[in-house]
Amino acid sequence: MNAQLHYNKIKGMNLSIDASRGKPDAQQTALSLGLLDAIGDCPPSIINYGGPDGIPEMKQLFADMLGLQPGEIIVGGNSSLTMMFDAVQTLVQSGLWQSGKTKIICPSPGYDRHFAICQHLDLEMITIPMTPAGPDMDIVTSLATDPNVGGIWCVPVFSNPQGYVYSAETVKALAALKTANPNFKILWDNAYAVHHFRGLRPQIPCILKECETHGHGARPIIFSSFSKISLPGAAVACMAGSPSGLEVFRKRLAIQAIGPDKVNQLRHVRFFKNLHGIEAHMQKHAAILRPKFELVAKMLAPLPVTFTDPNGGYFLSMETAPGKAKKIQTLCKEAGVLFTDAGATFPYGQDPADTNLRIPPTFLSMEELEQAMEVLCLAIEIA
Amino acid sequence: MNAQLHYNKIKGMNLSIDASRGKPDAQQTALSLGLLDAIGDCPPSIINYGGPDGIPEMKQLFADMLGLQPGEIIVGGNSSLTMMFDAVQTLVQSGLWQSGKTKIICPSPGYDRHFAICQHLDLEMITIPMTPAGPDMDIVTSLATDPNVGGIWCVPVFSNPQGYVYSAETVKALAALKTANPNFKILWDNAYAVHHFRGLRPQIPCILKECETHGHGARPIIFSSFSKISLPGAAVACMAGSPSGLEVFRKRLAIQAIGPDKVNQLRHVRFFKNLHGIEAHMQKHAAILRPKFELVAKMLAPLPVTFTDPNGGYFLSMETAPGKAKKIQTLCKEAGVLFTDAGATFPYGQDPADTNLRIPPTFLSMEELEQAMEVLCLAIEIA
Repeated sequence: MNAQLHYNKIKGMNLSIDASRGKPDAQQTALSLGLLDAIGDCPPSIINYGGPDGIPEMKQLFADMLGLQPGEIIVGGNSSLTMMFDAVQTLVQSGLWQSGKTKIICPSPGYDRHFAICQHLDLEMITIPMTPAGPDMDIVTSLATDPNVGGIWCVPVFSNPQGYVYSAETVKALAALKTANPNFKILWDNAYAVHHFRGLRPQIPCILKECETHGHGARPIIFSSFSKISLPGAAVACMAGSPSGLEVFRKRLAIQAIGPDKVNQLRHVRFFKNLHGIEAHMQKHAAILRPKFELVAKMLAPLPVTFTDPNGGYFLSMETAPGKAKKIQTLCKEAGVLFTDAGATFPYGQDPADTNLRIPPTFLSMEELEQAMEVLCLAIEIA
Repeated sequence: MNAQLHYNKIKGMNLSIDASRGKPDAQQTALSLGLLDAIGDCPPSIINYGGPDGIPEMKQLFADMLGLQPGEIIVGGNSSLTMMFDAVQTLVQSGLWQSGKTKIICPSPGYDRHFAICQHLDLEMITIPMTPAGPDMDIVTSLATDPNVGGIWCVPVFSNPQGYVYSAETVKALAALKTANPNFKILWDNAYAVHHFRGLRPQIPCILKECETHGHGARPIIFSSFSKISLPGAAVACMAGSPSGLEVFRKRLAIQAIGPDKVNQLRHVRFFKNLHGIEAHMQKHAAILRPKFELVAKMLAPLPVTFTDPNGGYFLSMETAPGKAKKIQTLCKEAGVLFTDAGATFPYGQDPADTNLRIPPTFLSMEELEQAMEVLCLAIEIA
């Protein structure tokens, strides 16, 4: 049966598979259900107001996970996305960045929600290429000479959507970067710090220490979260940086909030205990995720596309022939399989060559994933 | 023994009592410890992303509590203060209000954290008097003819710090108010909707319905929270309004957050079940709080001050002779008893007559409260 006939047959099956977002699957979240009963005895200080930046034990857990000091951590609510939005809003409101004027460097393909924040707050985005070692630093270096260029988005470990890991050279170059704008910020979204599912945990230099070496301590704003370690939506997020880098955020936080949910922090501390507990837990995630990524790679291998085959994270990135990504995504959609919109991985939703698609293998069961990939493969052949 | 000698003796005891904030006490929070185990079976949709504005059951609970429809509710995170801050920030960022230009009416004495939000975001505050029936509506009516006047802060039920309840006339007048500014907003902080500890629950007209009657549906932004029903810091908050009133916030929310902590919402739903469950629970709070407020009123009665004696809420408000409030608070502080800073209940921390002190009887045990009040009474006599 040729691809078109096969596609038509599947289209007639009225599939409805959502492969558009990088959610963990039910097996993964089941691993953390014990969290809900992990609270036990709750000291009075935990169940009343106070402690604007988190309980010491949770700061320690994040610090161990990210290679930072507890004093460098502000523990927040359930979402690092919300902390990122708020950080950018703070930079705008405080005048360190200016709506309608400040430009942000966006290595692309990248995370659609980073770009949406910039667009919502009217910060111009400059699309630049990603390489397997991180953003193209020649271009970054050149752009940073413009005083209106105020920062860069980075997903340093298992980048969204490629799953690339920044090289030590890239991290060091970002820290050393000469910027015309004194308020240049590195928005360092370390969402997948412990999310390797093959091999060892990637080791990259600490962006904060590297920046401090060059006298740029206020430059990095680090974000991380347990969203894809414990329970998405019911997890704990943090931001981190140097005292000078965090000052503008701490000042705002004192007005903005009485404090985060300390009970949920204590739950996480008691459930995971320490970095070893996190790592052991993530090995169970790895066992669930590895076969899914392998299935996707196996099915894409014979086709006229290139794709990344990462060792961790939640996505892989596929490059089609020029001008084909939108068509492929639409064909999938018409057959009942929803992928992230083509273009969504670029600022303003515009993929100049129309070649990139983001594939999140995590949420679907192996059976659904195989079905979704079958449709994708047929769509590639047809397109 | 005269007041000064008695005061000196107590000063020598090195007391350390913090009566500065309106926290629930440990007996009250103990009432909600069952919440932590109330989760039971957790459906997969609850422990994964999705649902930006809350689970239907939690919306229903808030709707029943506030006399609204579930569709009018956006459930948020753990803090209504954070939602208020974000709402004001949204109004500023969207251009509906303008930093450095828009003025906000602040009935005073009022809630210090409302005023801090305005100050942080550079919104000029206009101090106006409170009456036992709510803000002085003659002054509000006159101020609203200024197109730069963009809104008003209101705590309609058991106002902070007086414990006043707005009259039906005040609510209706606020809804009917002619405003030169088309984006005039009523920031309606209904923090103590079910927090009566004497008598029946106060019934006031629904500000949203009243505003809609006058074609001002987008005017009220309602806030509420379980912070002083369940566990402060680990509770659930909401904002509410008409579809047109909430539009600017929903648009932002889609960029800002993947969704709130649904597990904690489900905990609340399962623990409180319905409005009846909330009311029964709040009767237990009432039994703890009533004697504390009675003690304060009894001890203040013989003294040359006036004070409110509310039937609910978390505070009472005391008026001293002119120019004495700061001195009294300082005397208390020097004897180891911390009250909220004199002036804090006014915009910019400035009480023009220096007469107002806020007394929060809730957090201290009866013994500590009696000790704190003894010091306060002596300080009043001395001052």
